[in-house]
Amino acid sequence: MVATKDIDNASELDTMLTLMQEMVVQYVREGQNEANPVVTFQDPKQLYKAMDFSLPTQGTGTFELIKSTLKYSVNSWNPRFMDKLYAGTNPIGVISELLLAVLNSNVHVYHVSPVFTLMEIEVTKAVGRLLNMGENSGGLLCPGGSASNLLALVTARNKLFPMIKSEGYFPRPMNPAASYGKLTVFTSQHSHYSIDKAAQVMGFGTDNIVKVPVDDIGRMQVDELERLLLLSIEKGETPFFINATAGTTVLGAFDPIRKISALAKKYNCWLHVDGSWGGTAVFSDKVRAEKDWFDGSELADTFTLNPHKLLGVPLQCSMLITPHQGHLLFAKANSLRADYLFHGNPYDLGAGTIGCGRRPDAAKVFLAWKFYGQQGLGARVDRALASADAFTRLVKQRKSFVLVKDPSPFLQICFWFVPPQLAGKEFDLSTVTRELHRRVNQSGEFMVDHAPLVGKSDFFRIVVNAPTVNLHRDLERLLDAIEEVNATVDWSTVQC
Amino acid sequence: MVATKDIDNASELDTMLTLMQEMVVQYVREGQNEANPVVTFQDPKQLYKAMDFSLPTQGTGTFELIKSTLKYSVNSWNPRFMDKLYAGTNPIGVISELLLAVLNSNVHVYHVSPVFTLMEIEVTKAVGRLLNMGENSGGLLCPGGSASNLLALVTARNKLFPMIKSEGYFPRPMNPAASYGKLTVFTSQHSHYSIDKAAQVMGFGTDNIVKVPVDDIGRMQVDELERLLLLSIEKGETPFFINATAGTTVLGAFDPIRKISALAKKYNCWLHVDGSWGGTAVFSDKVRAEKDWFDGSELADTFTLNPHKLLGVPLQCSMLITPHQGHLLFAKANSLRADYLFHGNPYDLGAGTIGCGRRPDAAKVFLAWKFYGQQGLGARVDRALASADAFTRLVKQRKSFVLVKDPSPFLQICFWFVPPQLAGKEFDLSTVTRELHRRVNQSGEFMVDHAPLVGKSDFFRIVVNAPTVNLHRDLERLLDAIEEVNATVDWSTVQC
Repeated sequence: MVATKDIDNASELDTMLTLMQEMVVQYVREGQNEANPVVTFQDPKQLYKAMDFSLPTQGTGTFELIKSTLKYSVNSWNPRFMDKLYAGTNPIGVISELLLAVLNSNVHVYHVSPVFTLMEIEVTKAVGRLLNMGENSGGLLCPGGSASNLLALVTARNKLFPMIKSEGYFPRPMNPAASYGKLTVFTSQHSHYSIDKAAQVMGFGTDNIVKVPVDDIGRMQVDELERLLLLSIEKGETPFFINATAGTTVLGAFDPIRKISALAKKYNCWLHVDGSWGGTAVFSDKVRAEKDWFDGSELADTFTLNPHKLLGVPLQCSMLITPHQGHLLFAKANSLRADYLFHGNPYDLGAGTIGCGRRPDAAKVFLAWKFYGQQGLGARVDRALASADAFTRLVKQRKSFVLVKDPSPFLQICFWFVPPQLAGKEFDLSTVTRELHRRVNQSGEFMVDHAPLVGKSDFFRIVVNAPTVNLHRDLERLLDAIEEVNATVDWSTVQC
Repeated sequence: MVATKDIDNASELDTMLTLMQEMVVQYVREGQNEANPVVTFQDPKQLYKAMDFSLPTQGTGTFELIKSTLKYSVNSWNPRFMDKLYAGTNPIGVISELLLAVLNSNVHVYHVSPVFTLMEIEVTKAVGRLLNMGENSGGLLCPGGSASNLLALVTARNKLFPMIKSEGYFPRPMNPAASYGKLTVFTSQHSHYSIDKAAQVMGFGTDNIVKVPVDDIGRMQVDELERLLLLSIEKGETPFFINATAGTTVLGAFDPIRKISALAKKYNCWLHVDGSWGGTAVFSDKVRAEKDWFDGSELADTFTLNPHKLLGVPLQCSMLITPHQGHLLFAKANSLRADYLFHGNPYDLGAGTIGCGRRPDAAKVFLAWKFYGQQGLGARVDRALASADAFTRLVKQRKSFVLVKDPSPFLQICFWFVPPQLAGKEFDLSTVTRELHRRVNQSGEFMVDHAPLVGKSDFFRIVVNAPTVNLHRDLERLLDAIEEVNATVDWSTVQC
């Protein structure tokens, strides 16, 4: 017989939530006190000593472990976490994850996730409307921007060359029956490596990704794109996919979508926009009115946006939007049954994905949208842009700081610090940056990044994203901290 | 200047958590009361009327919306949710998601996620040891079983044919320089469609997936596998990947890993085991001692397990384990730099994934392991197996119920109900199953699934997974409910 021991999950959960609430609220409070470090950094060896990572045969307590996890993790609520393109989340973000956890839903078929299915359909439609894609737009949520970009690439290939789904990829001239030559993908030199990863996963080979040169502020050069498209065609290849980036990873540049779309149309290519970083700036009324970043967005075939970056929705929350019948496009292109056989429930979102089971990540951006409104989310973007502008001015006012781009294209402020002690001497600025970067982060007061770019020395890349960042308390202090750290370096002992 | 409005996220979170706690604890309590429905089912039209899915310009309240989300969603805590291979989670599951939400971490590089990185390394190593893969084993977490299977397939291709990464997939005889012919993938007729999806994503084409016949209880026939491997080689193709399934989706069969591994070795193929469903049964000491399901698991090159199914860890939590240096295998195979250039930080887990940013899902199984111990998690498996056995006996005792397999290979009990009213008449049993299934689910008292299998009429597939399921209260009642529902059908009006 089966054991029928009563398990009172509800009371156990109640007790545990009470314990957790105190811990996590305190953690968030500490994160927002600038006097606290962003992280108490431990290298793996130290961390193995500080915490117990062994996995027991019999159950042991977990609350001490949760306390240590909080203690030794990076506190991304701290406004001085400026290392990555995401920042901490916010209360509605935490609440929506708690809701997902309690429901433990799976958004592959409607009947097990009715509410989350409709939330996903409606929130992707609403984003499609912000992108001017109209009433037939919509899309799907994917586990991250790279996954969205991969799904875009697979969908494009399956729509343009449907026989590859069953027959496999065997191009002309090797396979005279194929309607395509070697497939080539076009993307800018500054685009994210997920495009390369997707192409290698799909068996195109990274050699068949054409990297288009960028202009002085990091935007794809459209005349170069056309020259390279023609070159590829001349070689007997079949260009089929152009990726434009809306907010590049290092500089934050926006490729000119409208101009690129004209070439996509002319050469029968799918136009994808990787807006993993900058795409959600479309929530700002001010951005849509004053900037040309989204000019032509309605002409994209697919568009990736990550609410988990700029909008503070918890990781992961990435959307792939299309004007071509929303999520049905993906179902038709990617279902293993042929188009003419596709009669599934149009509310079963799993048909369009590469996977099967899937978390209802759409609910997180849906709830954030309800809570803040589109304008509230847009205000977060505006606030970040204002902080970035003000910070740029601060950097310019200081001797020894040199901006990489002035003005910065978006929210990353990139600069070098040139130590006054080294004036008149020969030195490698990349080494200087990395040395200062290491020392600044080591204190735990800030967590910032440094970045490389072909043809330039490594520089500091500061991402102004958290809505709690304060110009004087945090941003001015960062410049002071770099100066203070520099003052402690005996550069004659550093090989640079 | 930047607005420096103080945002007190900590107090806001405190207030919201207090509100949420009451709601979610009540929800869990209701879910475990068998008198409550699993779901109050609404079709999309009804649900659009019952809830407000519009997305506002200005922020509005969200708590009413959260209440409605709970009200109209499937309550997977209810032991009568037997529709899918997953069930509700448990308190430590909810707590670990809350922890992830508050930390909002990203496990791509060590320095932003030190604790979660070590948890992932240790928990995948520990699972590798359970699979007898030894001290050099370990792996990565992926966003679902399909994603793990895809990563396994990409890794196999990149290890066996490294030039495809850069040059693309151009096989012999079309490309005489290639070291490979058309690549073929072998998997059983009963394996999960994610293998097909992965192969089509990668451009192999679903026609190049060889489906190996199964024996009477759904296991891959090893002699057929060898015959088909030889046939493929004869045609000039290159078999390179064999997928064995540990727990098939419909029947729950385990392919014989040891025998398959001998063929994999003989024909230079990568051996992958898709244990998305049954893989975590390895946590049970009893299973490892008494069943042959994991015999030869140490010989697999990669092995997928989903703690989010059988172990009750929240969706999603899927692991890909390998004996070949753990996560470093994936980093070496999938990094865009060549092997000889790979000098990255071995603790930066992102290098081995297809994506970039990633949720620290490993923490959820790590915390569950600490809380319950390996034996506690194993006990959950044992309890489910005991329930399934007992349920099988109940089904056999009743007239009109016919088991599809006796005994069932695993935790899915598959059966037909043959209405006594139809005795001596001609009818389509698939239609009967679907009609009864629809009516049983409509009441909301249960949520169960029906399944098709080539050559058989559709049947009920009951998944016994929740640890709270009670033999008499839930399982016996289900059989009663099917009989009661059948008594209400006038079969002469149903076209069957």
